[in-house]
Amino acid sequence: MKKIYLDHSATTPVDPKVLKEMLPYFTQKFGNASSIHGFGQEALAGADRAREQVANFLNCETGEIVFTSGATESNNLAVRGFIKALQKNKANQNKKFHIITSLVEHDAILEPCMELEKNGIEVTYLPVKSNGVVDINKFEKSIKDNTVLISVMYVNSEVGSIQPIREMGKIIKKINEKRLKDWQRLSAKDRGEKPQKIYFHTDATQAVNFLNCDTKYLHVDMLSLSGHKIYGPKGIGALFVKNETPLAAMQLGGHQEKNMRSGTLNVVGIVGLGKAISMLDKKNVEKNNKKIAALRDMLVLGIKKNIPDVVLNTDRANATPSHAHFSFLDVEGESSLISLDLEGIAVSTGSACASGSLKASHVLLAMGIKVEVAHNSVRFTLGKNNTAEEIRKTIKVLPPIIKRLREMNPLYKN
Amino acid sequence: MKKIYLDHSATTPVDPKVLKEMLPYFTQKFGNASSIHGFGQEALAGADRAREQVANFLNCETGEIVFTSGATESNNLAVRGFIKALQKNKANQNKKFHIITSLVEHDAILEPCMELEKNGIEVTYLPVKSNGVVDINKFEKSIKDNTVLISVMYVNSEVGSIQPIREMGKIIKKINEKRLKDWQRLSAKDRGEKPQKIYFHTDATQAVNFLNCDTKYLHVDMLSLSGHKIYGPKGIGALFVKNETPLAAMQLGGHQEKNMRSGTLNVVGIVGLGKAISMLDKKNVEKNNKKIAALRDMLVLGIKKNIPDVVLNTDRANATPSHAHFSFLDVEGESSLISLDLEGIAVSTGSACASGSLKASHVLLAMGIKVEVAHNSVRFTLGKNNTAEEIRKTIKVLPPIIKRLREMNPLYKN
Repeated sequence: MKKIYLDHSATTPVDPKVLKEMLPYFTQKFGNASSIHGFGQEALAGADRAREQVANFLNCETGEIVFTSGATESNNLAVRGFIKALQKNKANQNKKFHIITSLVEHDAILEPCMELEKNGIEVTYLPVKSNGVVDINKFEKSIKDNTVLISVMYVNSEVGSIQPIREMGKIIKKINEKRLKDWQRLSAKDRGEKPQKIYFHTDATQAVNFLNCDTKYLHVDMLSLSGHKIYGPKGIGALFVKNETPLAAMQLGGHQEKNMRSGTLNVVGIVGLGKAISMLDKKNVEKNNKKIAALRDMLVLGIKKNIPDVVLNTDRANATPSHAHFSFLDVEGESSLISLDLEGIAVSTGSACASGSLKASHVLLAMGIKVEVAHNSVRFTLGKNNTAEEIRKTIKVLPPIIKRLREMNPLYKN
Repeated sequence: MKKIYLDHSATTPVDPKVLKEMLPYFTQKFGNASSIHGFGQEALAGADRAREQVANFLNCETGEIVFTSGATESNNLAVRGFIKALQKNKANQNKKFHIITSLVEHDAILEPCMELEKNGIEVTYLPVKSNGVVDINKFEKSIKDNTVLISVMYVNSEVGSIQPIREMGKIIKKINEKRLKDWQRLSAKDRGEKPQKIYFHTDATQAVNFLNCDTKYLHVDMLSLSGHKIYGPKGIGALFVKNETPLAAMQLGGHQEKNMRSGTLNVVGIVGLGKAISMLDKKNVEKNNKKIAALRDMLVLGIKKNIPDVVLNTDRANATPSHAHFSFLDVEGESSLISLDLEGIAVSTGSACASGSLKASHVLLAMGIKVEVAHNSVRFTLGKNNTAEEIRKTIKVLPPIIKRLREMNPLYKN
């Protein structure tokens, strides 16, 4: 049985072209990029080229890229490393900082924020509309005088909703510019301290495959991404850190990555990430998006047509083309997942990162979905290698599964 | 020109057998190990087998292994995660903790210790003897009533000196047992709080290839290791954390690794680390050690015989078989390195992790070596694939290099 993979938000296979690029760095160009000799320089050259590929994609300087072990580390570093840097500054000792984030972020943002909250940082968790998108007016109103960091994800991993990052970036930029101008207008003796700039971070992990991640276009100061979500390897990620953004290292040691992240460079992983991202040129992305959206729409149509009592939680007008997040009412998501798995079809319930957990997804609850409906959810996330044949098989296999599972549920009304 | 690699302490090539084991996990068994479906379970099975391989090597339970992005992260987690866990306990709020480490540790231990020192933790940095080994009596005397953590490396990356970890472990165990007994002897009303156990961590990154790392034999509570130093991939490491050792996560998010280290499992890296460590069975280690020691001794003899005014900083009786750390008096180590590199021979000055730095190695200074002699140092570190032919070539090439460089130095006496 040929297996069908419809869980691309959890992880993606490494593209054979990416693997090919990586291979020489395991056994031949294996040097430590910190070494001065030929082996080291050869490795460093590989990492440098990858850094250029990432910088090119993000439209930034190579010196603004920090390689990490993945998006979780990038997100932790962005939030905690930023606050650590501010707190290191003695002038800030008695200041009460404010962070804004959203209720639908990944735990790698939410948990660092909650830890900071315990340590005296004020945090606002923005609600979302029923389609999973932050209300831009509520966003703007949440900004306060002591706001120092705003971290909002670009694309939600569960339902695929796209946040208006560029609009947020513009609003923040405007406020920063106004505050600075107001301050400059004051006479020297009235001025006091220069106003604190508000910095903007986005977790773009789920966006990179599909959306424009030009950091200047988005007006972001920091941006997280991961290798294994974009047909690159696991264990590698990056954080874009705009020049002059305060950031203190979380992992200390050999002073790699301009002191922002110590540890021997994972050259193989970096080379893989660089290659994977270089394949996301505008033309390829448009081609993939079109193909994936067509397959996703075929899946949605097929499911809606053949299965009663189903809710599509993904608002396709405001989501990446990959996502189709359903609730099959009165059927436990996990039962659907397991039944599909027996047919060789891989999907997810809620978010794969939190699978195994019995808690209802915090994202779905934030969207106003009832707990019991959240537990009925199944996430299909399509990728560039999926075929119409695979979608046809899924549409064929799923209705009898849902029917059978409902028949086993005494609460199901029919 | 066939290049000669004599810098195995900086990094090692991935063994082809290791790479072969890893390959299926890039493109076929690529699932997210947190996913419930077949792709996820296949990936998890690979990670689980690797976890068994590591646990087997360390003679511990699989649940005592935390996979990390490398030894730098393992070391940071061991020191900072341990103190964070103690500080989370409200009963400890007003306690002044004491950590013992040594002056010759890697920066990934020293820097976290120095940061903790700034935040009110007391730290003792043990001196070493001229051979780079900690004096066991000084070690014992440094233990105080408020000592909570001792972190001493197993093998030094620069000179290869072996620390008496097992002896230290026994001393700590004895003190812990005595304190507990004394406490138990007290009547219930006089007892007060149970005595704080002293925990013992060792950074075994440079030891794994050569020495017994049985955690029960060593009496350690935590142990760090890295993939790329043992013919495995970069970007992967592990921390052994004995059951009931307090440890709070540093990287927050998806709650992987029993909540101790969040982030999608780097399954490919984990599989590679497992395979690499599984190849270090007693027989292989003995065979490699014998071969490498013979080549190293051949190199030492050849250099001493053909080059005047040279100091061997490695005390071979107390070092791993890989290391031959020399000072060629009145010759800048970097000049030797570059000249050797032009002949296709890769060596290091001081520690590769800190290369590019102009500071004299803190390890050499701690051994009582003068700053100017430290700057003359060249580190040769041999590996399992080196040949007698390569050593002969090195012995042939080096004397004229040193002679030429000395002739360029007006300070050289001859």
